[in-house]
Amino acid sequence: MSSIPAATVGRLVTYLRVLTDMEQSGVRATSSDELGAVAHVSAFQVRKDLAYFGRFGTRGAGYTVATLRRELRRILGLTRPWHVAIMGMGRLGQALADYPNFDRSEFRLEAAFDVDPAVVGRRIGDLTVEPVSVLPSVVAERDIDLAFLTVPAGAAQAATDALVAAGIRGILSFAPVLVTAPDHVRVEPVDLSAGLQRLTYYVHGTPDTPSPSPG
Amino acid sequence: MSSIPAATVGRLVTYLRVLTDMEQSGVRATSSDELGAVAHVSAFQVRKDLAYFGRFGTRGAGYTVATLRRELRRILGLTRPWHVAIMGMGRLGQALADYPNFDRSEFRLEAAFDVDPAVVGRRIGDLTVEPVSVLPSVVAERDIDLAFLTVPAGAAQAATDALVAAGIRGILSFAPVLVTAPDHVRVEPVDLSAGLQRLTYYVHGTPDTPSPSPG
Repeated sequence: MSSIPAATVGRLVTYLRVLTDMEQSGVRATSSDELGAVAHVSAFQVRKDLAYFGRFGTRGAGYTVATLRRELRRILGLTRPWHVAIMGMGRLGQALADYPNFDRSEFRLEAAFDVDPAVVGRRIGDLTVEPVSVLPSVVAERDIDLAFLTVPAGAAQAATDALVAAGIRGILSFAPVLVTAPDHVRVEPVDLSAGLQRLTYYVHGTPDTPSPSPG
Repeated sequence: MSSIPAATVGRLVTYLRVLTDMEQSGVRATSSDELGAVAHVSAFQVRKDLAYFGRFGTRGAGYTVATLRRELRRILGLTRPWHVAIMGMGRLGQALADYPNFDRSEFRLEAAFDVDPAVVGRRIGDLTVEPVSVLPSVVAERDIDLAFLTVPAGAAQAATDALVAAGIRGILSFAPVLVTAPDHVRVEPVDLSAGLQRLTYYVHGTPDTPSPSPG
């Protein structure tokens, strides 16, 4: 698993999204050219990414949309529901509690936590905010696997440690600092400034010819 | 510019974040080994990513944190402020209007738009929500370059078209569907489900040995 580049995993998620769109539009077959074009990568990259996991297409005939979609869902672990908690119920936590997309996904929001007594007990979306003191028991009782980390920078590492201690196995972190966790817990940072910084790279027009500085 | 892999751009953003943390901690020199370890990539990958843009280190002596940080900021276009609008002031738009990290970044939230008359005029963070009808004039007057797209799926493409027509050059899209824009406008999708799907890949424990299906 560790031999698969993280970038490949990210692209598998994109391919799955493209295939889902195709299936909903009634498209039944596709190719690495077509998948690559929609996902903004080369056909070669598509084939290379998929080759890590076996052989999915037929040479010359491309891929069956439904089959490849099913295989990608299996590879990504999406063949069973995942229970998710939200740690930190500020505006971002509240936005996630209300994010419509989860309704039709494998992800079930099961709990929301906050340290602020003024927020605990409040109903947001389908969740009632609970105190962090019950985190370990709630995670165990509701079989919660994953968590959104939506706390301020200063609280991020302590909140991560609490999630790890409670048995959470994967954390999608929106905290504006890098947090660390033991190897058996995966942390995926979602940095909203980082998204903007990727944008500015493309928008400001860096030339693609290297301009070597004195090395 | 198009010859630089998108994954490299994403990693440059990560390296910059690591270097910023180092600088704040008083670290003055680093190496591709160290940068790679914190950014979860190989030292070879760090050197390869940087080599697209020139030569930044000294063989054997590594990198000066301040110098490499300054070069990355230049490459990423972060040497000037960027004006940002929020399109769609539901809970997610509101969370972004309130995101503390922008205060100390190059990104200035300059405007927030919504189609809902009940939301227009409301004050959120430092912004007053404006109607979409004034989008073109506001983008021109306030020199807005970038936008967060935080509208429901059904409104996403029309909102994108409106942003493009108004002169926006980069869009960070949280919409739960893929939107398209002309080549001169960059769209970076931020799919919250995709973040969870990358997590489940690591958490569910896919074996790293290929299991070929009949091809």
